Amino acid sequence: MQGVSRVLIDGVPDTAVPVTDRAFQYGDGLFETIRLVAGQLSLWRLHRERLESGARTLGIPLDLQCVEQHCAVLTQGIAAGVVRITVSRGDSLRGYAPLADAHPRIVCALYPAAAPDPRPYVQGVRVRLCDTRLAEQPRLAGLKHLNRLEQVLARQEWSTSEFAEGLMLDVAGRLIEGTFTNVFLVLDDRICTPRLDRCGVAGVMRRYLLEQRPGMDGHTVSECDLWPRDIEAARECFVTNSLIGIWPVHTIVIDGAARQLTGVTMGRQISAEVERRLGFTNSN
Amino acid sequence: MQGVSRVLIDGVPDTAVPVTDRAFQYGDGLFETIRLVAGQLSLWRLHRERLESGARTLGIPLDLQCVEQHCAVLTQGIAAGVVRITVSRGDSLRGYAPLADAHPRIVCALYPAAAPDPRPYVQGVRVRLCDTRLAEQPRLAGLKHLNRLEQVLARQEWSTSEFAEGLMLDVAGRLIEGTFTNVFLVLDDRICTPRLDRCGVAGVMRRYLLEQRPGMDGHTVSECDLWPRDIEAARECFVTNSLIGIWPVHTIVIDGAARQLTGVTMGRQISAEVERRLGFTNSN
Repeated sequence: MQGVSRVLIDGVPDTAVPVTDRAFQYGDGLFETIRLVAGQLSLWRLHRERLESGARTLGIPLDLQCVEQHCAVLTQGIAAGVVRITVSRGDSLRGYAPLADAHPRIVCALYPAAAPDPRPYVQGVRVRLCDTRLAEQPRLAGLKHLNRLEQVLARQEWSTSEFAEGLMLDVAGRLIEGTFTNVFLVLDDRICTPRLDRCGVAGVMRRYLLEQRPGMDGHTVSECDLWPRDIEAARECFVTNSLIGIWPVHTIVIDGAARQLTGVTMGRQISAEVERRLGFTNSN
Repeated sequence: MQGVSRVLIDGVPDTAVPVTDRAFQYGDGLFETIRLVAGQLSLWRLHRERLESGARTLGIPLDLQCVEQHCAVLTQGIAAGVVRITVSRGDSLRGYAPLADAHPRIVCALYPAAAPDPRPYVQGVRVRLCDTRLAEQPRLAGLKHLNRLEQVLARQEWSTSEFAEGLMLDVAGRLIEGTFTNVFLVLDDRICTPRLDRCGVAGVMRRYLLEQRPGMDGHTVSECDLWPRDIEAARECFVTNSLIGIWPVHTIVIDGAARQLTGVTMGRQISAEVERRLGFTNSN
């Protein structure tokens, strides 16, 4: 299969799922995308906690120990790569009611590591503000579930490499996240990232930054309500996820007008400190 | 596979899709569930138009003639049943950006017809008002796409056969639809069904009723903004989809309190006329 090195389905080498699988039928499940660094799942405790919390919210009886065992087998002897864990509610008859005896299906897939490219880390990236808005659904907010059509629509707004990412607002106009990253703004001595209690994916790297504050000396970091006017006021901006780490943003294009950020100093400093602590090799 | 009689994937007998399929990975696709009556796909023109419109909105280059050919092969020699067509954007690498050369995957599955049961048609059904709300996402409103976690959550609010369906409000509190049906209220001489421009699935049977007005002599039928207070004021209520036709509702349970509707006369009259016109055999 294109791009995938190896797949285990419920612990067994395989590459296909039945069409009766509820992830295929309804997007009824969750996923995690994890960086494999020196043979270890980076930030696994945080990925595990999000998966556990998502399974509880969706009512999927997930055995996390199974997930860990399958990942250990999948990554045996591999130093670097990307692991995607997909958990579906399992098979089902027609209709939204889950089977009483349904077993979740656990798909662990190994992808090759991305080719190293220091440029986005050193120079920063250019992003755009997307037209596609995020709906407010507090019941699903924060989860990395499989209903991702909003991100798919937003990602179709550009097709060239001109933009590294697209930022998204919610229906009320609040800044929420990027299509595959979380977003942080540096406002004076405060670093702010949007609250995700109405929509958005609560990224593992975002949580790591909020809790560990790597390289943020002298700055506070917190969750806030943010609006496009805060982008205008921001000194810096950076986007984060558990695969890339931190990309400083040098330019944000809003309605065709390019807004240059003052610099990428703070983003680079945080990025470098995260790389040091987590053993990522990106910017050098 | 449980419950499925026969499956064609891109026209070929098969039962599984690769884990790289975007319907499995992101719910990136559409579906239709169609009643097979006397060997024909009932209301096919309307199903086809919704599928076409959904594919256009999602940017999936779908060949509708292929879909028709596969369905013809799937149902050859079969008089009655249920056909589920699932269209995914096809395979993909990691990430939301579709492959430039992606081919949609067309899965046509045949299920046995439901066992005939005249009771819901004659006596009406008992439904509940769900706590799970629908988010407002105008970009996806009306489509029968594969991001159905809201319906899955709502359907988990009850597990006994006490309720035949659950009605859902949007985040603003408007009545929108049932978990697998559309809903109509009879208010004096008006029949009303919720507008679906913010959220909800625009059902094929709903469109048929709006356009053809079967059995509605002396009543107007239209799309309106409806609220829970309109449920209180309604003389009758019925729910519809392309498989069941029309179920009159005799009782709606809201916050634990049962509200009896005045009758099921109009619902039964419309149901009987739809059965007559479409050749459904349910209530007799």
